[in-house]
Amino acid sequence: MERERICTKKSCFSFDTIKRLSLYLRNLKRLKEKGIEVISSDRIIPLLNVSSAQFRKDLSYFGEFGKRGVGYEVGRLIKELEEILGTNKEWKIALVGVGRLGQALLGFEGFSKFNIKIVCAFDIDKKKVGKVIEGVKVEDMKKLKTIIKRKRVKIALLCTPPHSAQEVSEKLVAAGIRGILNFSPLILKVPSSVFVSNVDMACELESLIFFLKRNERKV
Amino acid sequence: MERERICTKKSCFSFDTIKRLSLYLRNLKRLKEKGIEVISSDRIIPLLNVSSAQFRKDLSYFGEFGKRGVGYEVGRLIKELEEILGTNKEWKIALVGVGRLGQALLGFEGFSKFNIKIVCAFDIDKKKVGKVIEGVKVEDMKKLKTIIKRKRVKIALLCTPPHSAQEVSEKLVAAGIRGILNFSPLILKVPSSVFVSNVDMACELESLIFFLKRNERKV
Repeated sequence: MERERICTKKSCFSFDTIKRLSLYLRNLKRLKEKGIEVISSDRIIPLLNVSSAQFRKDLSYFGEFGKRGVGYEVGRLIKELEEILGTNKEWKIALVGVGRLGQALLGFEGFSKFNIKIVCAFDIDKKKVGKVIEGVKVEDMKKLKTIIKRKRVKIALLCTPPHSAQEVSEKLVAAGIRGILNFSPLILKVPSSVFVSNVDMACELESLIFFLKRNERKV
Repeated sequence: MERERICTKKSCFSFDTIKRLSLYLRNLKRLKEKGIEVISSDRIIPLLNVSSAQFRKDLSYFGEFGKRGVGYEVGRLIKELEEILGTNKEWKIALVGVGRLGQALLGFEGFSKFNIKIVCAFDIDKKKVGKVIEGVKVEDMKKLKTIIKRKRVKIALLCTPPHSAQEVSEKLVAAGIRGILNFSPLILKVPSSVFVSNVDMACELESLIFFLKRNERKV
């Protein structure tokens, strides 16, 4: 599914806008924890590390938020951003492949802050099945469909080795999964109604290298 | 540093182009391993999971690659993509924060395939310092500058907890690091000459949720 540009009735914006909204939300929550209730545009921009124009543009796609001369109500902006992103309710998540990366993700504290909860984990390794890691019981892959359907999970973290990633993704889709965060270095083939987001470390590093190299040439 | 669009003398392309080139490269390497030397446009497209137009457009920014009626020489295309991306030489990498995620990255086999090698790792935890994990000795944070300078490392994986991420990033920059792959959920403030790529799991999940929710509305 084409994800680089998203078009609503009013306007088109890039996928990166959504990622930035997510980052804004995170930083606003930190401000709220510190007891800050209202923040001026001038003060919020340095915290977000974006340009003032970018911040206003990103928000403008979804409505009017700040008040001229007053600034942004932190609590209200958090609520609005959560509603835009859909994280105002809890999202249950499944994890497949309880290797080192899978275990790191099971213990990742960042998810709970965003109403995201890993509710089941699966592996084919008999030694892992039955173990409880970070409060989540590792289940046999054979039970994947039954458990995911019963728990009505719609999103999965795919952390299997590359050679089984495509097969597992098909099982996930058959079980009702609609969004996959793919940690394997493989382009998954899924129906167009299923969203895949790739977290590809080697790919990210290659992009960094491209920019470094490009910059070296300029110098 | 603005990274969404990259402009050369000839044209402008998006950051996603670079990420896709990286994925193309990976898939071409798999084809080569299978002994495939030449591949037609019709056959390569389904493997890459992009549209034919996208593939041609992405390559067109950098030159002419395929031959009409013949297709693509796999070996040559790999070489050209490696040169574009800069992965035709080995890149040494430092890792900071040897927690669960850091350990998972130390054991990540994907890097070596792309001429990316973690050559040093750092942590503040005295219990971890001195240990050898996946062939890499964990060093004390105090030695960060000396070792990174000596080994001439330019890229770092930042896997520390959020509260120390900014401080550590400043130390990395002072040690000569020019590119940071940031795994902490924090927007880093670095000089404009330093590239930061954020691998933010919660942020990726929030984007997935946004798309799922949007699609549910449509149904």
